[in-house]
Amino acid sequence: MPHPGDSVKITTEKDTLEGILLPSFEKGVILIKLKNGYNIGFTEKEIKKIEVLQGREQNKEEGKNEKKERRELKKNTVLPTIVILHTGGTIASKVDYRTGGVTSAFSPEELISLFPELAKIVHIESELVAQMWSDDLRFAHFTLIAQAIERWVKKGVQGIIIGMGTDNLAVAAAALSFTVEKSPIPILFVGAQRSSDRGSSDAAMNLICAAEFITKTDFGGVGICMHGTSSDDVCAILPATKTYKLHSSRRDAFQPVNDEAIATVNYQNKEITFNKKEYQKREELLIVKPKMEEKVGLLKIHINMFPEQFSFFKGFKGLIIEGTGLGHTPGQVPNELCEIHKKIYPAIKEVIDSGCIVVMTTQCLFGGINMNVYSKGRDLLELGVIPGRDMLANTALVKLAWLLGNYSRTEAEKLIGQNLRGEINERLKYEESFIE
Amino acid sequence: MPHPGDSVKITTEKDTLEGILLPSFEKGVILIKLKNGYNIGFTEKEIKKIEVLQGREQNKEEGKNEKKERRELKKNTVLPTIVILHTGGTIASKVDYRTGGVTSAFSPEELISLFPELAKIVHIESELVAQMWSDDLRFAHFTLIAQAIERWVKKGVQGIIIGMGTDNLAVAAAALSFTVEKSPIPILFVGAQRSSDRGSSDAAMNLICAAEFITKTDFGGVGICMHGTSSDDVCAILPATKTYKLHSSRRDAFQPVNDEAIATVNYQNKEITFNKKEYQKREELLIVKPKMEEKVGLLKIHINMFPEQFSFFKGFKGLIIEGTGLGHTPGQVPNELCEIHKKIYPAIKEVIDSGCIVVMTTQCLFGGINMNVYSKGRDLLELGVIPGRDMLANTALVKLAWLLGNYSRTEAEKLIGQNLRGEINERLKYEESFIE
Repeated sequence: MPHPGDSVKITTEKDTLEGILLPSFEKGVILIKLKNGYNIGFTEKEIKKIEVLQGREQNKEEGKNEKKERRELKKNTVLPTIVILHTGGTIASKVDYRTGGVTSAFSPEELISLFPELAKIVHIESELVAQMWSDDLRFAHFTLIAQAIERWVKKGVQGIIIGMGTDNLAVAAAALSFTVEKSPIPILFVGAQRSSDRGSSDAAMNLICAAEFITKTDFGGVGICMHGTSSDDVCAILPATKTYKLHSSRRDAFQPVNDEAIATVNYQNKEITFNKKEYQKREELLIVKPKMEEKVGLLKIHINMFPEQFSFFKGFKGLIIEGTGLGHTPGQVPNELCEIHKKIYPAIKEVIDSGCIVVMTTQCLFGGINMNVYSKGRDLLELGVIPGRDMLANTALVKLAWLLGNYSRTEAEKLIGQNLRGEINERLKYEESFIE
Repeated sequence: MPHPGDSVKITTEKDTLEGILLPSFEKGVILIKLKNGYNIGFTEKEIKKIEVLQGREQNKEEGKNEKKERRELKKNTVLPTIVILHTGGTIASKVDYRTGGVTSAFSPEELISLFPELAKIVHIESELVAQMWSDDLRFAHFTLIAQAIERWVKKGVQGIIIGMGTDNLAVAAAALSFTVEKSPIPILFVGAQRSSDRGSSDAAMNLICAAEFITKTDFGGVGICMHGTSSDDVCAILPATKTYKLHSSRRDAFQPVNDEAIATVNYQNKEITFNKKEYQKREELLIVKPKMEEKVGLLKIHINMFPEQFSFFKGFKGLIIEGTGLGHTPGQVPNELCEIHKKIYPAIKEVIDSGCIVVMTTQCLFGGINMNVYSKGRDLLELGVIPGRDMLANTALVKLAWLLGNYSRTEAEKLIGQNLRGEINERLKYEESFIE
């Protein structure tokens, strides 16, 4: 009978897979960690045979031998100092071979032991800001991170790397690019799609490219550093407000939308190539506006909407609608099958009348909205819905929460449609954005 | 003072634009129809100068001259007969030069006058099933369209083209691929991103390629025919359950997700190239299961969710969650800033306990979910959330509504995770779908 921690080979009808047996969490399900770092579950029914390839004791021994000796890090005064702010996620996590559980490496010593190349580029400080999955982030965490940034800028570090889970990394980067209005140092969000103890891990390369970019350029904004392709050739420095996680597992999941990467960092020769001439440079002073309004929501439109889905946001301060196409919701009644749509415009109106700023974006992701093309868009404009131009829905969400946290309602209403941090692509002319 | 229908030149601070003045719908806003077919609005403040280039009377004359003479269509008994089912949208619409309004062309005669090339490929019949924007579609409309399909198959047509607005065209195609289980003829959804009276219109090419594909192949399923690139070179025949409108305005907005186009149709030489060896062939008999369950919803996860957003679906029959990453929602409480997440798992549990089938998909669009990788996924599995594998959220939504309309709850629960119409990419091995 195999035990958690054993290396096993599992044979099913279709496949033979090898991995480390994990403690099971579900009755009748056998879970193993594959060599590629992912876990896979089998129902007991599916499994034809399990063989133990190597016992857990030997795995544990090998794990120990692999462990590099910890050294006391002395401050290297020649290299620039950066701080890694940890907020959780796969980026600095390592599997525990005895239990299959994932543990985290937080201290500068642990980080250098995991990523020795980093020590040649920068002197590292670190702080555990929060230990959580990025899918549990709320607006309040962005305030927390902004405050940590303030502390470390005051201490004089030359750059900040924020390690975070990837699910909401792009959204968090967008939020922080609003809260940190001006910065004397670059702030890069770095994540990993595969944990760092695996051959296919992107953690080391993403961190090293981020450190190279921080130390070699005059960039002073908030950005994202992740794999630029599915190979280990280049990392992309992505615009914080214009990036979407467009694949659930690829290492190059993060893609610019209605925009391009700011720069690329070649992992082999460490050459940095800027794609954009205009990017945020380092400023003299740090200006942080960390507040976020809590009562701001998002509603994605789909087939078969109910009016109550809109009414839910009555009393909210802000609502982003992720409409279809050029910025539409249901609301007309061309035939009796959509009789219920009679109640949708009134529901939207009620939300707006309750004091809520309602902004339209598109679920197409690429391209922008244009509410003047079809009668649907014009109906919504008349109700008081504000066009969100080509902003990503998630970016519009954190921008609106930030505006309402730091400005009056009137100012927020004015600023939501204006480009503040590259979140609206002004190089696209109004009509061009709708024509390729 | 210019009047609606006049050709005008508008000068603003930034731009000079020409177009036809439209009736204004908003106070202080001047609206013109550009040559590219889109409308653009200006506030009166922005406008420095308006010049009338040509009066509306002359525009009207020219419009008349442009109008081709209507001919009485005689049935061409050599060519195969297809039916165009109209449901509205840009595909068969034409601007009225006097008013700037968009009118629709429905009769076979009008269609042939708009698209004369069609008459060389097929004999056309037509039916106006509904005249509406696709963003007003509800599940009940899919039943209506399925019934129209039944009628025309009985009449013996050799193919069906469904003209529809593009906002929800891909979702409708997915729904119809479930309701039409087997078909003796091909059924293609065709839309247009630009109206047919404009140079850049994609209407003619999309319709002609669809007609070519219908008459020249043995394809017998439901598909989508739209521009394959931004040029007028090829149309793509796209898989109904695996296609997403990924751009709000480009003509090649429709892209396959976790899949590839079934075939391409070369517009110049009309050559058809299949990318897939396996595709749905014509069946002997038509099998239609047109029912759709009304109480099925979709919830997209974002930063700062409230438990009530989940509770809303208590009493629904089905709910698709569009989670983050590999299939996650908030729900853990790593620190006091997300105290409110304590209520999220119980809210999901309550929805499930109310009899609702809850299915997880990913908002990354590309890649699938894997709820065994992180503790979040495992938490949700334990609550009873069903993995939606690599299904698009919208496809999962219409599939679940269809399953619940035609099968028992137990069968629906079993079938939602099984591939019925290509909606789950089985060629991706379980672990491969998470590794590029």
